[in-house]
Amino acid sequence: MPRYALRIEYHGAPFSGWQRQDGPATVQGALEAALARLDPGPHAVAAAGRTDAGVHALGQVAQAEMRKRWDPFRLAEALNFHLKPAPVAVTACAEVPEDWHARFSARERRYMFRILARRAPPVLSAGLVWRVPGPLDAAAMQAGADRLVGLHDFTTFRSTMCQAKSPVKSLDLLRIEPLETPEGQEIRVHARARSFLHNQVRSLVGTLERVGSGAWSPDDVTAALEARDRAACGPVSPPQGLCFMEVRYDSDPFENGWRG
Amino acid sequence: MPRYALRIEYHGAPFSGWQRQDGPATVQGALEAALARLDPGPHAVAAAGRTDAGVHALGQVAQAEMRKRWDPFRLAEALNFHLKPAPVAVTACAEVPEDWHARFSARERRYMFRILARRAPPVLSAGLVWRVPGPLDAAAMQAGADRLVGLHDFTTFRSTMCQAKSPVKSLDLLRIEPLETPEGQEIRVHARARSFLHNQVRSLVGTLERVGSGAWSPDDVTAALEARDRAACGPVSPPQGLCFMEVRYDSDPFENGWRG
Repeated sequence: MPRYALRIEYHGAPFSGWQRQDGPATVQGALEAALARLDPGPHAVAAAGRTDAGVHALGQVAQAEMRKRWDPFRLAEALNFHLKPAPVAVTACAEVPEDWHARFSARERRYMFRILARRAPPVLSAGLVWRVPGPLDAAAMQAGADRLVGLHDFTTFRSTMCQAKSPVKSLDLLRIEPLETPEGQEIRVHARARSFLHNQVRSLVGTLERVGSGAWSPDDVTAALEARDRAACGPVSPPQGLCFMEVRYDSDPFENGWRG
Repeated sequence: MPRYALRIEYHGAPFSGWQRQDGPATVQGALEAALARLDPGPHAVAAAGRTDAGVHALGQVAQAEMRKRWDPFRLAEALNFHLKPAPVAVTACAEVPEDWHARFSARERRYMFRILARRAPPVLSAGLVWRVPGPLDAAAMQAGADRLVGLHDFTTFRSTMCQAKSPVKSLDLLRIEPLETPEGQEIRVHARARSFLHNQVRSLVGTLERVGSGAWSPDDVTAALEARDRAACGPVSPPQGLCFMEVRYDSDPFENGWRG
């Protein structure tokens, strides 16, 4: 059956995460229901990242199989029609080889976390940022982040529910981007790795926020990492600041498809 | 009575605009109700811009009078507490002289309009952008915008409901900022003037979108302006892309106050 790669955006708030569940609304469930409107019967889509409840995506990548061949533009438009009014949209679509896999072919995942450091509650960015009272010292946060980049045992920074076989991962980038915006001080944390552990980015961000606020030193970050103990982690940040931005493959699966 | 300047953010969606009405929720109504929780009795706040239904603000400025003297930080915090859960926040507060006026002392108003040019419906920026199918030619839009900057009779670009005595206004800046974002092509239209006519920014943006899409030429913009006829205007853009960004005074009223 023809296989399609789909690039997907979603707002995490109304969903109990990516992965299909009996009962609660999930992004996978919404997408499979839309596919079933076009091609009746069960669908089982696989995605590059199984994001947690409340986490957003601008560049999730999933794969779907259809009984008949579709023009990628028409497939994306039809899915967007049937996904309404759920806050999920298909922004690229392409036919891919049968041995291409959204999850197992992925070479790199990129996340971004937004922190808004100010007293007043967020208004226009409500639901898209973690609001902390601030101000945050971005240089100190970067110094802390530098202790975490590279190949490490990230036991401290993964959920006790994490099902990955090994806590050893290579974190390829952890960059602190300070911005002065009309809403106030915003800190964006950019993270890249081949793959991430469960709750890893939120655990890293919660720990770096402690550094930014002055409660922790960069040396405390090193000590937490070296402890290899979940209890040594800073507070886990809430999900709404996190966005799954991009998945990289050996070659861009959407290169010859439709990009909206 | 001590007078306070308040810098205010709001999300326009739940409000029938700034100005108090009997019945419908308005931003002025929400702010006056919060003030009444701190200082019982009627309040009549004045604002620099009476934004339309659905229009957002990041830098609205209003003034309020209180019977007793407040610490600006405590006043802002108390207002933010009582404004909840309405999407309105006070982000700066300062005591100002009795002859200072949020509206009449204003020297310049700044607006920004966001257009997202793509096929798929907006998800994370839903409610904050005008989604058009695009793509838009930003250089053509700037060429059209250049025809509108300066002192002109803007009859074409104001609502027939506009109550301003004269349609002659000086438009000091109309800048097209093209961006490539993870969501796709975004065009930001920045506008500055001492004051604007009713629906002026949305009328200008709707007309420039016609230029960006290729339906109009920059010469058509000049012809529309010179017609001095409301019927010559392009389609008025919807409100949710518009945000009231900033008000300038001879001196910054918040300089010695609290800024959050």
